Order: sequence, then C-alpha cells, then structure tokens
Amino acid sequence: MIHFNSDYTSGAHPRVLEALVSTNAEHTAGYGADEYTSRAKASIRRAVGVEDAEVVFLVGGTQTNATMIDGILARHEGVLAAESGHIAVHESGAIEASGHKVLTLPHVDGKVLAEDVERYITEFYADETYQHMVAPGMLYISQPTEYGTVYSLQELEALSDVCHRNSIPLYIDGARLGYALAAEGADFTLRDIARLADIFYFGGTKLGTLFGEAVVMTNRALIKGLFPLVKQHGALLAKGRLLGLQFEALFSDELYKSIGEVAVRHAVRIREAFRAAGYDVVIESPTNQQFFRLPNAVIDALREHVSFDYWGPRGESCSVVRFVTGWSTTDDDVNTLLNLIDSLKR
Amino acid sequence: MIHFNSDYTSGAHPRVLEALVSTNAEHTAGYGADEYTSRAKASIRRAVGVEDAEVVFLVGGTQTNATMIDGILARHEGVLAAESGHIAVHESGAIEASGHKVLTLPHVDGKVLAEDVERYITEFYADETYQHMVAPGMLYISQPTEYGTVYSLQELEALSDVCHRNSIPLYIDGARLGYALAAEGADFTLRDIARLADIFYFGGTKLGTLFGEAVVMTNRALIKGLFPLVKQHGALLAKGRLLGLQFEALFSDELYKSIGEVAVRHAVRIREAFRAAGYDVVIESPTNQQFFRLPNAVIDALREHVSFDYWGPRGESCSVVRFVTGWSTTDDDVNTLLNLIDSLKR
Amino acid sequence: MIHFNSDYTSGAHPRVLEALVSTNAEHTAGYGADEYTSRAKASIRRAVGVEDAEVVFLVGGTQTNATMIDGILARHEGVLAAESGHIAVHESGAIEASGHKVLTLPHVDGKVLAEDVERYITEFYADETYQHMVAPGMLYISQPTEYGTVYSLQELEALSDVCHRNSIPLYIDGARLGYALAAEGADFTLRDIARLADIFYFGGTKLGTLFGEAVVMTNRALIKGLFPLVKQHGALLAKGRLLGLQFEALFSDELYKSIGEVAVRHAVRIREAFRAAGYDVVIESPTNQQFFRLPNAVIDALREHVSFDYWGPRGESCSVVRFVTGWSTTDDDVNTLLNLIDSLKR
Amino acid sequence: MIHFNSDYTSGAHPRVLEALVSTNAEHTAGYGADEYTSRAKASIRRAVGVEDAEVVFLVGGTQTNATMIDGILARHEGVLAAESGHIAVHESGAIEASGHKVLTLPHVDGKVLAEDVERYITEFYADETYQHMVAPGMLYISQPTEYGTVYSLQELEALSDVCHRNSIPLYIDGARLGYALAAEGADFTLRDIARLADIFYFGGTKLGTLFGEAVVMTNRALIKGLFPLVKQHGALLAKGRLLGLQFEALFSDELYKSIGEVAVRHAVRIREAFRAAGYDVVIESPTNQQFFRLPNAVIDALREHVSFDYWGPRGESCSVVRFVTGWSTTDDDVNTLLNLIDSLKR
Repeated sequence: MIHFNSDYTSGAHPRVLEALVSTNAEHTAGYGADEYTSRAKASIRRAVGVEDAEVVFLVGGTQTNATMIDGILARHEGVLAAESGHIAVHESGAIEASGHKVLTLPHVDGKVLAEDVERYITEFYADETYQHMVAPGMLYISQPTEYGTVYSLQELEALSDVCHRNSIPLYIDGARLGYALAAEGADFTLRDIARLADIFYFGGTKLGTLFGEAVVMTNRALIKGLFPLVKQHGALLAKGRLLGLQFEALFSDELYKSIGEVAVRHAVRIREAFRAAGYDVVIESPTNQQFFRLPNAVIDALREHVSFDYWGPRGESCSVVRFVTGWSTTDDDVNTLLNLIDSLKR
Repeated sequence: MIHFNSDYTSGAHPRVLEALVSTNAEHTAGYGADEYTSRAKASIRRAVGVEDAEVVFLVGGTQTNATMIDGILARHEGVLAAESGHIAVHESGAIEASGHKVLTLPHVDGKVLAEDVERYITEFYADETYQHMVAPGMLYISQPTEYGTVYSLQELEALSDVCHRNSIPLYIDGARLGYALAAEGADFTLRDIARLADIFYFGGTKLGTLFGEAVVMTNRALIKGLFPLVKQHGALLAKGRLLGLQFEALFSDELYKSIGEVAVRHAVRIREAFRAAGYDVVIESPTNQQFFRLPNAVIDALREHVSFDYWGPRGESCSVVRFVTGWSTTDDDVNTLLNLIDSLKR
Repeated sequence: MIHFNSDYTSGAHPRVLEALVSTNAEHTAGYGADEYTSRAKASIRRAVGVEDAEVVFLVGGTQTNATMIDGILARHEGVLAAESGHIAVHESGAIEASGHKVLTLPHVDGKVLAEDVERYITEFYADETYQHMVAPGMLYISQPTEYGTVYSLQELEALSDVCHRNSIPLYIDGARLGYALAAEGADFTLRDIARLADIFYFGGTKLGTLFGEAVVMTNRALIKGLFPLVKQHGALLAKGRLLGLQFEALFSDELYKSIGEVAVRHAVRIREAFRAAGYDVVIESPTNQQFFRLPNAVIDALREHVSFDYWGPRGESCSVVRFVTGWSTTDDDVNTLLNLIDSLKR
Repeated sequence: MIHFNSDYTSGAHPRVLEALVSTNAEHTAGYGADEYTSRAKASIRRAVGVEDAEVVFLVGGTQTNATMIDGILARHEGVLAAESGHIAVHESGAIEASGHKVLTLPHVDGKVLAEDVERYITEFYADETYQHMVAPGMLYISQPTEYGTVYSLQELEALSDVCHRNSIPLYIDGARLGYALAAEGADFTLRDIARLADIFYFGGTKLGTLFGEAVVMTNRALIKGLFPLVKQHGALLAKGRLLGLQFEALFSDELYKSIGEVAVRHAVRIREAFRAAGYDVVIESPTNQQFFRLPNAVIDALREHVSFDYWGPRGESCSVVRFVTGWSTTDDDVNTLLNLIDSLKR
C-alpha cells in the first residue's frame, strides 16, 4: 500500500528525528527558555530577513490560529477570511470560542481577492448601522490555500496594501507554507511573506516535524503579553526545546526547501499523469495537494493499492479525490502510482 | 552538573523514544484514529479497571485542565480548588479565559479537606444571595499536590463522597500521578483513583513521555461533544498516534510504575540526606518533589555542581529550594548529590 | 413631522406608563422577587397555555438572545440562523462573544425553510470531518423576520418538526411577536408558538413598554441555572418589578393584541397607498414593517414632512425605504401620510 | 411598614419620573443618538470638570463592570479588587464569563490599601514564574465600598498614584457614588474622582433613577470600540433617551447632591440612635448603609414594623443587620424607626 492521504500521516523527517534522539538525555530549561529554541529563533529571523521579528513556537495549527487571532483582535472585532478558510470551517469554532466572529469573504479556488476585502471594509463603514455589526479587525489568508492554490507576489502585495491602507493587520496561515514556497511558478520568497504580513506562521507538522508551528510576528506591537497568552491558550509546551530542535533542523541547510521542492515535484508528476490518462484536474494546484475527478470504478481500483482522501461525489458516477505528497513520499511511491494510473487510462 | 530542577527537563524514557523511532516511517490516520491510540486506550482501560471509560489524549496539562473543566461546567458554575492549586495560580488564567471562576479553598500542604468542601457548599446555598454568586460546579484536586504531598485513600474517599452527595463531579489532575502511585506509604491504587474520580488525567510529560496527558472519564455522560471540544481548545494533535505510542509504552510491562518507584526512592534518599545533614525538610513529601530550607551559603555551594529550583527567601539568611527527581535521574546523580550534602553538613 | 422610523422611537403605551407611575412609591423586593413580576409571569403562562412554563424577564433583545443561546448550547455547538438573522448581522458579535458560532442558512425574505435546516444537519453529519466543524445545536428564527414577513403555522410546524426529529431545540426571537400575531392572514396563535418552540421571547420594547423582553421556556430542562446565567450576562434588573409591571399591563385585557392589530392595520393602509400610487412594494409584508422602492425625488419630498428609514440605493435613481408603524402611530399620522403619498402619485 | 432594605426598592425620584412622563410621546432616535442623551452627557462633563471625557450610559451595575473591564483588559490580564469587592463576590462570575480573572486583595472594611496594591504588583513581577500567572491589568475599587465605607482623598490619591506608577488604570465603581460624595466628612469631590480615576461610573439605579449607570472615561484611549462593545455585552438600550432623560434630571440643579445629602443625614440619625440605645455599630459607615449587631429578639421586634436586611449570625444570640436609606426615605420613616429603637433600648 502506498499513501497519499496527507502530509501528516507519518512521523518526522530523519534529520528532525535525529535532532530529537541525539539530545534526548540532555537537561534544559522548560517552556522554550533553552538554547535550541534560541538558535531556532535566530535561524528563522535570518531566513525571513527581519532581525527583530518576534518568533514563538506552538504545537498545532488550529491552536496557533486561535491564540494569535485572539491576541490581535479587540473584543468588538472579527477576522476576515475566505468562506473556505480553515478557521471558518475546520476548527470546531475555536475562533468563536475565544469570542470572535469569522467574517467570510467569497473566494476563487480558496483565494481571497484584494478587491473583495476593500469592498467589504468600504461597505461596512458605509452602513449606518455598522456599530451594531462586527468590525473587520484583521485579514486571515492561508498560503497555500485549502485547495493547494497559491497567491502570486502581486496578489499578496495587493492584499497587504488593502490591509495596511485600512489599518488592519494581515495574518498568513502557513501550515503548508514550505510547499507554497516550492510551488510551480512561485514568484515570492519567505522574505516577501515576512515583509507583507504583519504576522504569519511557518508550519512544521505538515513539513516533516512531529508537530510544531513557528509564528513570526514582524509587527512586534501587534500582540501584548504573547507568552502568557500562549500559556492561557494551553499552547505552551513544557519541553519547549522539542520545538526548537525540530525547527532548527528544518532551517539547517535549508532542509525545509528541499522537502518542499521534492514533494511538489512528486505532486506535479502525479497531476500530469492523471491528466495524461484523460482525467479531470479539478483545481490547478501548483503545490503538494492535487484534486482529481475520477470515475468511481477507477477510485475503487486504485484503492486496492493506494490510500488517498475522498472529497465527495461529483456528477452521476464520479467523485473528487485528493492526493497529497509530503516529505516522506518517495520516487518509488510515485512510480508505482504512475504505473497504476497508466493502467487505468480512460 | 547534575539536574534536579524538574521532571520535564530532559526528553523521553528510552522505551518511549524507541516506540516513536521504530514507527516513524509508518503512515497512519491522523487525529487519534490509529491503532496505536486504540491500543493505548485499551491498556489504560485495563489498568484503571473500567472497561467502558472514555479515554482521550491531549498534549499538555494546562490545556487538559482548561478543556475538561470547560466541558464539565455549566456557564454559571465555577470550579472549587485549593488556593495553591495549579489552575488557581499557574495557568495564566486559562480557566477564566474559557469563562469560569476558580473558587478557592484553604489547604494543608496543598491538600483540600473534605470538610472544607462540605462547608463551602453548605454556606454557599445557605446564603440568600447565592444566585448572585458563582455556584460550585465541580471539585478539582491534584494527586500529588503542588507540594508533592499525597491524599490518602481515606481522604480521597471523603472527597469523592462529599462531591457525590452534593452532585458535583470530582476531577483529579494527575500531572504527576505516576509519582503519587509510587509514593512512600501510598495506600491507593490507580483503580481507586478511577473509582473515586469522575474524571482524571494521568500525566505523561513529567513521567517520561515527550508530552501528553491521558484523560480518563469514567462518568461518560460528564462531557458532551468531547472530540470537538478538544479540537476547539486547540488540543487535538494532528499526528495523534504519537500520543498513543507513548502511552502504550508507558503502560507496557507497567513501565509507569517502575519509573515512579525509582524516582520516589531517589527522592527519599535525598530528603533523608538533607535531614541527616541537619537541614529543615519544609514539607513532608512522600513523592518525587522535595522542599528544603537551606542557608543561602549552602545553596550557593550546591549550585556549583547541581541545578535545582529556588522557591523564595525564608528568614534572614535562608531560602526554600526544591529538588525533583524523575525518570531520568540516575543512581550516580543521587550519589553525587548525597556526597555534596554530606560535605555541607551543618 | 410624523414618524415612521421604528416602533421604539417613543416612550411607553399610556397604560404601561400608568402602571409604572401609580406604583412608583411602593417598596418591593429587587431582582424580580416581587408580586408584580409573579403576576406578570402568571398572566403570560395563561396566555401561552403552558402552566409550568418558566418565564423570565430581561431588558433588551440582543441581551436576551445572547443569554439564552449561551445557556442552551454546549460549548462545541453553534446556532443555526438565517444569513439575514439579527444574531447573524446586527448584534455586534454578542453570540460569538459568549463563545458560539452562528451557522448561517439561506433565506427567503428573511424566512428559513425546514428543508434547508434538514439538509444542513444531514450534510453536516454526512461529512467525515464533522467533528472538526461546529455542530448545529439549536435553530434560531424570528417571528416576524427582519423583513416583516411571517412564518405560517405550517411552516412553523415543519421547523419544529425538523428540530425535534434532530434533537435540537427551536428558539423563536419574538422581538416583534405582537405584530406577527396580528399580521394579515396570521393563522397561528401565541399558544401555537409556545407549543412549537422550546423557548421564545415576547418583545415588549417594540410593543409599547419602555424596555423588556419576556422569555418563555416551555422546555424547562433546556437551561440549567437560568437566574445566575441572566445575572452573569448583566441582564438582571435591580428594580425587577419594572419589568413585571409593564408586562402585566401588556397582558391585561389583551392590550398587546390591540396594539398589534392597530399597528398592522395602519401598516397595511400605508402599503396599499404606496401601491395604489404606483410604487413598488419590495417585500410583501403582512406586519408593521413595510419596504418600498421609491424614486429619490419622492423620498426627498416625503422627508420634508415624514421621518422614515433609508435602507439603500436600488437602481439608478431609486432607493429602498422602510416605514414602521407602532403602538403610538395614530390615525392622523397615517391620514397625513396617505395624503402626501397621494400627492406624489407616479 | 417602613422600609430600609435597600436604595433600589422603590421607583424613581419624582423629578426623574416627571422627565420620563413629560416626554413619553416624543419620537427620538434610538440607541442614545438623541438630544436628551447629548445634554445629559454635557451636564456630566461639566460636573466632573473634564470637557472631553467620554460618557456612555448603561442599564445596570454588573453589566457596566463586566463591559468596561472586558474592554480595558488585554486577554492575559486580570483585575485587582478587594476580596469583598462586588465583582469578586456578587456578579455571578460576569467578569470571568468574559475571560478575566479577579485578582483579590485584602481589605479593611471593604477598602483596598495602596500599599497592598504596590506589594501585589511588586511581588508579581518578582516571581520568576510570573508569565504563567495572570498579570494585574487594572485596579477596581468601589466608592463607597460594599460596607458603606469611603476612601479619603488621600487614600484615593495614593491608589491613583500606585496605579499610574505601575501603568495600570484605576476604575471606580460608583454604584452609590452619590452617597459617597455626601458622606460625613467626605473630603473629595466629583472632580477629584474624575481626576484620579481613568474611568468610573456614577450610579443612577440606587440614587433615584429607574435604572442606569453613567460611565465617565477620562482616559479616552482606554477602550477601543466602546459603542460596539456595549452592544456586544447586551448593554445597549434601544430607547436610549430614557437614560439621558434620567441623568439629565439627576444632574439638574444638582439633584444628585440633595438626594445624597438627605439620605446620609437619615442614615446618621439611625446609626446614632442605635448607638445611643446601646447596640453595636459593626462598621463605622459615613454613608447611607449602616450595619448593626442586634440581639435576635430585638430584630424580631423591629421586624413587625420595619423591613431591613439580615446579614448573618454574630455570636450566640445576635445577628448583623443592614439598614439602608435612600432618595425615598422620609423624615417620617426615620422618626418612626427612632421611636422604635428607643423603645427597644438595651
């Protein structure tokens, strides 16, 4: 059986695991007050090109979103996000649980348009009753999106611009940012992300760590009391060095880049193989998540050898499925899959 | 340098680490829907002797307390706890952040007395204005307490009794439960804990896992929607099997018992060595945390070779310090410390 | 100047005011523990035909919605409501502030369809990832809706049925319920409302009290700790009898009925006058709120003599406006308006 | 029967009621956007001597405390208050319900000492683990206190000073501020209150309005989004002018002053009568609340003619009771009571 369900179904990249194993017996201060954590922060500051950025490590993505959004917003404010955004759909109401409304925007393949943000804000303040409604206090986007699509540099600049002209911060959920940076045709760098966002996180969980998300806050005034806020949200890891160690590994010799590049190359091969075999590519994704519309019979045949995610029926006898590559996907996995696809040609 | 700061300053017990390493390449379902997690739950159900207990794994202690207490209490209810309780003091307001007041009780060396719980509840409902106050909706205790002391079986039975006669659930924070079970003179078992509490957690982080706390809910009706509640609190780990793997290891061949026993034996040796050297044992703790009152000069001398926690001044030229043993404390560590103590005899 | 802006722009109905004035010097117990409040509760129980209904009085509508919804929902649940629902749009995020997501449904002129509720719930639980999403925990509707439209008895029965088959309570926001009961063609009674909803409120503020909303909870098990919950939400009035007095007046000799009937009759005359004058009735409302599409020139002309609410542009040179009648609207007011309309005939 | 239970057991002062009655038929804009509200704000700004103070009217005290404290504090901060403070004891957890911990201080007859505030803050930041605890983000006091005692000008200045040196705002709960200003020996003015506090409220409910509390925020930057925050907390009254009208009346010809002075004079006569009759004055209160220790037989005898509040047993056969005067207490009431006391002389 070969696996393309997701990028968090196996453990850690060997170099990440090695960092954990080789230091296992050491004693360090808890809660992130250790050397490894300091070094990982320094590595990330260098990589993003912002010397005085605040960097903090949390355990998971929903936790990171809920904690940071709660810290950023005033009580009467909400967060703008795509209707398809993770915080709008798949976080069990974590944002609302800390008191804030998710204000939804339309999207194109998961992407929010700057003009829609502009229109929302303009129409909001034009409404005489706006004080009875939830004010847009920040913009949340994810790069890549839920559908694997990627904002171009120009799109990011437009979003950053509309936010800053309207005095709201831009937050980028980078749960899979490593794969976006390696996307086909990606015209932005990690430094661009840091320059355009007020705060973003670089996801580890889906890029080869056991767990962990690195928050980078370039606008240091954005959140007051960050450490106790993280603690209050139950997001402070006692053995904090585990986060530092893993991110230090990820940013050593640009490991995160090679992980992203290999996974994207695999994904593109799979995408083109399905296309060549005559099947519909549902979303033109340049990253490690790929969506296809396949006849149900083909799905059944594939499932004997491959595991992947089912997304729902589409038409009479077809369905949409998702294939995801990751740090642990091998050439052999992909070659096996490609042979299978070829044998199931339309 | 030898280390007695805490039981969470190093990595994982070798057997726990081995479980993580040996399965690293496997692909499993996320969010706890894997075999390892199922097996760990079964092990724990067997160990606690409650076949149909609900078991769920979270990442950290503050997170576990905040999530479960939020799930148990009605909106108008608060949680009774010792003034010294972790939730009352050291969780950055996580309980209040989810809307609930911590109602504090006096304590004796960290322990709450059943009669004080009874009196609180009786006086509360005797007050004509009680509907304007926060109703006690549950009791939180920790076993062992913040000061390393342990409730006897009789004390636990009295607390369980007062709770159930007053129709409030008993919650036991077992962040260091493994050490309580191995305490000098401990007259209760894990089965007693499960029988007397409505819900408790068995801590991994301080007992040799990298992270993780196992919640055991014997009263299954206590929390509605446990899974989404955990997710909402940002406490759901994507690579959920990591929790299952670690707890499976901890409950294999009763590893948790031997870890507890060894650490307690070490702690007792240290305690008696300080006592024999003429120093004050501040709290008579039968577990792995020990508190001493030492002259500041002695503290300085020890610090050249040993790291431990400073708790605060006590009198003119003395201070209270804490020594903690753990799964990684070795005979060599303890012997080295004992020699040092002997050399600093009063 | 004559006024049709809203039904809460003047003080109290003379009989309500008289009740307040004539008892002003009396001393009574606070917080609703007075005779007037008891008698008002009894009157309401009789009127709704549920002897053991829980009745509680709060000050305002947003407050009532936020308090009750918070009391009904478990932490992981959200409330279903029309996209146009008051709680979804015009309560400054009060529902989210107490931790709950508003789950929006499509609507037809403000009304939710039972089939859409059914579909939402069915699709929700059919989604494999539903535990990562916010569970629908109750249905909120308002009668009449934001647009003055009214659910028929059959529609209410269908909504009640879909809720109860799916084990979620039905909550009816009756901020203007008095006007719905008096609506043209209304085929339901207050007893029907009480029978079909698990909880609803009967609004006073818009029906001739200075303030106040009467919550009727026929399903008494729905909220635990109702009194402290109300207090916790800042919704407990010290001089509670003011609420009792006003509602006692409203339910004496069926005052609420005559207020509703007169206002609706006025509204219908206005609607038909605009229609006869050749203007568009935007929504076919059978209650005291009426929406028209008027040329901007006509709006300007009217404004010299009449105040009413502007809702927004519609087409090149037209706009939508709202006219509301209420307990204080007089025949003279309406006749004056009708003459004006007639003089502005298309 | 004469009544000394509390100052909120009857309706409104005749001049306040007259303002409501005489304007009842008028139509005004809702939610406080009316002339009466503007004029009341201007009156209050003049009275407090701060031209640009933000003034906002809410309905009740618990609501006001919960709303403002929620607006002031960052998420990780708590509010310092006396253990006996209203927010700490008698608000059903409203502060915690919006996410914040009440950090309690010792008190002397309800009053917090500046040195205790200083010590709390100093010790807090001296604790190495302070980031794991709830940071003191503001100080809450009430003037007068729960026990009717009053801070002197010097005490207020010391509290204001300690707050501002430590960069936390001072909030004064003035639910009965009118009575404090009229207290025996009061050496501070309303202008002093406004000068020393960053925000305070002047209570109407207990001083002769039907309801209403006037918040005065001299430090306008303290709360962002005040209007929507008030709405979100369910504290925005639709017929907002009712608040403006009542406060305009209260501040016309200094009505609030004469109400306070008369009530305090009554209270002092009662206090001295009990003292002269040989009974214990439990707390030396210079305001309208008085506390006595009476034999239970005396209490029973009084109760045949007088209603007052029972506070609890004190010793074998005695209890503490509370007598409160208010705007509606008459000379006749007091004379009747004094005759009774005289007849029950020890």
